[in-house]
Amino acid sequence: MALALTFSASAQSARALPPQINKDNSVTLSCKAPDAKIVQVTGEISSGQATKDMVRDTNGVWTYTTSPLKSEMYYYLIKVDGVSVTDPLNSACIIDGGSHYSYVIVPGGVGDLYTPKHVPHGSVHKVWYTAKDLGYDRRMAIYTPPGYEQSKKKYPVLYLLHGAGGNEESWLTFGRTAQIMDNLLAEGKIKPMIVVMTSGSTKNQAAPGESPDEGLYRQISGSSYDTSYEVQFKDVLEYVEKSFRVIKKKSCRAIAGLSMGGEQAFQTALNYPDTFDYVGIFSGVPRVRTINGNELKVEIYENTLDKLDKEFQNGLKLYYIAVGVDDSLYKNSKWLRETLDSKGYPYVYNETSGGHSWRNWRLYLTDFTQRLFN
Amino acid sequence: MALALTFSASAQSARALPPQINKDNSVTLSCKAPDAKIVQVTGEISSGQATKDMVRDTNGVWTYTTSPLKSEMYYYLIKVDGVSVTDPLNSACIIDGGSHYSYVIVPGGVGDLYTPKHVPHGSVHKVWYTAKDLGYDRRMAIYTPPGYEQSKKKYPVLYLLHGAGGNEESWLTFGRTAQIMDNLLAEGKIKPMIVVMTSGSTKNQAAPGESPDEGLYRQISGSSYDTSYEVQFKDVLEYVEKSFRVIKKKSCRAIAGLSMGGEQAFQTALNYPDTFDYVGIFSGVPRVRTINGNELKVEIYENTLDKLDKEFQNGLKLYYIAVGVDDSLYKNSKWLRETLDSKGYPYVYNETSGGHSWRNWRLYLTDFTQRLFN
Repeated sequence: MALALTFSASAQSARALPPQINKDNSVTLSCKAPDAKIVQVTGEISSGQATKDMVRDTNGVWTYTTSPLKSEMYYYLIKVDGVSVTDPLNSACIIDGGSHYSYVIVPGGVGDLYTPKHVPHGSVHKVWYTAKDLGYDRRMAIYTPPGYEQSKKKYPVLYLLHGAGGNEESWLTFGRTAQIMDNLLAEGKIKPMIVVMTSGSTKNQAAPGESPDEGLYRQISGSSYDTSYEVQFKDVLEYVEKSFRVIKKKSCRAIAGLSMGGEQAFQTALNYPDTFDYVGIFSGVPRVRTINGNELKVEIYENTLDKLDKEFQNGLKLYYIAVGVDDSLYKNSKWLRETLDSKGYPYVYNETSGGHSWRNWRLYLTDFTQRLFN
Repeated sequence: MALALTFSASAQSARALPPQINKDNSVTLSCKAPDAKIVQVTGEISSGQATKDMVRDTNGVWTYTTSPLKSEMYYYLIKVDGVSVTDPLNSACIIDGGSHYSYVIVPGGVGDLYTPKHVPHGSVHKVWYTAKDLGYDRRMAIYTPPGYEQSKKKYPVLYLLHGAGGNEESWLTFGRTAQIMDNLLAEGKIKPMIVVMTSGSTKNQAAPGESPDEGLYRQISGSSYDTSYEVQFKDVLEYVEKSFRVIKKKSCRAIAGLSMGGEQAFQTALNYPDTFDYVGIFSGVPRVRTINGNELKVEIYENTLDKLDKEFQNGLKLYYIAVGVDDSLYKNSKWLRETLDSKGYPYVYNETSGGHSWRNWRLYLTDFTQRLFN
C-alpha cells in the first residue's frame, strides 16, 4: 500500500498544473522545465516576497508550495534560469507599468471579494474622449452597475485614479474593481454607482496595444505631475455627464486616487470647486508644490491652502485619507492630516498595516465605497 | 572607425529591448538571460513557424532577427531552456484557449488595419446577459461605433462568433476587431455597425479571471457542438435588442463565425428564420449532423437541408463562405458550396491561401464587413 501511494504521488508529480490552492490555503505552483538548471518563484506569493527555489522531480517538473496564505490576491512570476516570466500554466495574467504578472486569489476572506461570483454583474466599458488641451483622444474604463443598460435610472459617479506606471485598466486588473463592486453591491454594502477609471499618465492615450502613439510594445511610463491631468479632467467630466446616465450633483460625485492618483484627486478636488462631496486619498502625495522653497506659481498648483479652505468652507460630506504605516509616502498623508487638524476640518482616517501596495488599495476602495452616496 | 563601430554595436547589444521593427520589416526580438543555456523563438514570427535559436552576446543578451516580413500581426513565444513563455519585454500580450502569446504587428499593409490610429474610436463593452436554459449569466463583448454614446441613432448589428478554445474576447485580441472596425470606418469602407462578440463555449460563463465557475487559472476548453449555443442565442438577441440602440430588422442583422463559430453561425441562421439578411461562414464546419449515417434527431440539428431551403426561399442579401486552401476544414466549406450550387442558391465565395488561422479570419472579417448593410 505504501508502495502504491508512493508510485501514485510520483506519477502525479509528473504533471505540471495550473496553480493549486490547497486545503490549508497554501498554493502549489508548478512548471515543466526538464532542461532548466534552476526554476524559482518570485513576487508577493513567496514568503517575505523573496525569490524561492522550486524543487525538480525526476520528470523535470518543478514545484513550489507556499506556506498557508491569508486570503488575498497575490501576484508572482516564475524565474526560468534567471528570466522572470509569467506562469505559462496560469490563464490569470495582468499588466501594470507595461509588465505582466501572474496571480492567484486565495479564498476565505478578502480574496472572496476579488473573485467572480454568481451575483448580478455590472458592465465594463472602454470608451474614448477628446482631451482638448492635449490634442488627442484618450481611453477610459467605466463600470456601470448591474441593470444599467435596461433601466432609466441615473447614478452617482466615483472617479477613480491609478498610480504612476498604470493606465485606465489598472483598477480593473490589479484593483479588481468590477468584482469588488459586484460583490459589495450583492451584499447590500454599497449604493449602485458608476465608476470612471481614467488614465493618469497624460502622455499615454491608452493601455499597451490600444494606443496610436506610444508603440504597441512598451508603455511610456510617463507620470503626470505637471497639471495636465487636472486640466484635461474637465473633458472627462463633460464626456461622462453627456454619455452616461449620471446624477449631475455635487452630492453624487466622488473622486479618489492612489499614489500619483492621490495627488491628482487632491488637486482635482481643489481645482473643481463645488464638484465633489467625497474625496479619497489612498497612499497619496497631497502637498503644496514648491520651487526653491516658494509655492510653484502654476494655476492648478498655486494657492493650494486657500483652495483647501474654500473646499471645506463650501462643505463636503467626506474627506477620506488612507495609508499604510510602512508606506514611503506616509509623510504626505501625515502632512495633510496635520494641515486639516490645524484648521479643524473633519476627515476620516484609515491607517492600515503594510505599505504602498495594491493589497491596501483594494481594501481602501472597499472601505471608501461603502461610505459613498448614503 | 571599424573598431568604433564594433564597439558601439557591442555596447548596444548589451541592452535587451522590446521588439524592434527594422526598416526592412524584419523584427528583432531580444531577451536578457545570461544564465540560460539556450533561448529560442517559436510561433508565427519565425520563418516556417519553426523554433529558431536566438544568439547570445557576451553580456547574456540573446537576440533573433527574422527575415523581412510581410505586413501582418504575428504571435510568438520565447523558449528559455525549453520553457515557452511570453516575451517579458513586450507589453503586447493576448490570450486564447487559456494560453498567452506575445505579438508584433509589422506595418505597411494589412498590419496597418490592426494598429490603433488617430481616428475616431468606437467603444468596447463587456456586458452580462442571462442564458435562461443554461441557468447562469454569461459575458459578451460589444463594439459600438464612434459617437454611439452621444447620438440617438440606431445601428445594424453583426453577431461575430469565435472558434473552439476561444472566448468572448478572442475577436478583440487575436481578431483586432475594434481596430479593424475603427480603421475601416475612418476610410469610409464600412457602415457604422454594432458588433456583438459572444462566448461560444457554453460551459464557460466568461473569459479566464472573470468567470465564477471555471476557476481563475485555467479555461475549460469546452466546445459547444451540442445545440446549447444555438438554444441560448435567443437570450443574446433579446439582451442586445433591449440594451443597445439597434435596428430590429432582418436587413440590419448579420451573423458570422469562424471554425466552431462557423457552424454555430450556420445553425443559428437556420434556426432563427427571417432573422439575418447576412450570413458569414469563415473556415467553418457547416454540415448535416448524422449519427450512424442517419440525420441526428435533435431539434436544432434536424431537417438541416429543409431549413436551408427555407432560408434561401425567404430571401437573404448575402451568404458568404470563406476558407483557405490549406484549411483542414476545407471539405466542409466545399460541401456547403456544392449543396448551394446544386440548388442554385447564390453566395459569395472567398477562397484564400493559408489555412485555419487568425491571419485569414481577420482578412475575412475585413472583407465581409465591407459587404454589410449597404
